[in-house]
Amino acid sequence: MIKVVAKNFAKENKIDKILELAKELVEKTVKEVGCVKYEMYQNTNEPTELVMLEEWETEEDLNKHMSTEHFKRIVPQMAEYLRKKAEINIYKKVI
Amino acid sequence: MIKVVAKNFAKENKIDKILELAKELVEKTVKEVGCVKYEMYQNTNEPTELVMLEEWETEEDLNKHMSTEHFKRIVPQMAEYLRKKAEINIYKKVI
Repeated sequence: MIKVVAKNFAKENKIDKILELAKELVEKTVKEVGCVKYEMYQNTNEPTELVMLEEWETEEDLNKHMSTEHFKRIVPQMAEYLRKKAEINIYKKVI
Repeated sequence: MIKVVAKNFAKENKIDKILELAKELVEKTVKEVGCVKYEMYQNTNEPTELVMLEEWETEEDLNKHMSTEHFKRIVPQMAEYLRKKAEINIYKKVI
């Protein structure tokens, strides 16, 4: 089991655009093999920080996700509405 | 329901010290009212990044957590083994 924290920093007036795209990404991703959780959250102190909080059964499942049609189509569209590059970190449970 | 991502950046040779302290913090915190999840993860690309991934029923429950005896005792002890200040962000679900 691994977790992913993928931070997206939206341009000020593009939060809605990101959410619209992320909605389709979430709908399709939760149906993938090995996807335990895939949800979007917003920083309560910084509304332009939209974070995908993910949980995958294996790193292989995560890699497969990044080669799906919907990922390769939607993520570059989302990138157009970001003010800087997304920060993606992968974690394994230690406690 | 809110989520918290609390990043701790351990000094190179102090990872074990952090984990030892975090173990007690987790054991006590999961018994608190409103604590849905409270687990420690390690960045797979940067082992000194130890992240508490938390889920709380309400922001009030989180605030109460930060005033418990175990939080006020253990967190400052952990801080001695960090190479920089912890980064704490609070999130609400949007999708």
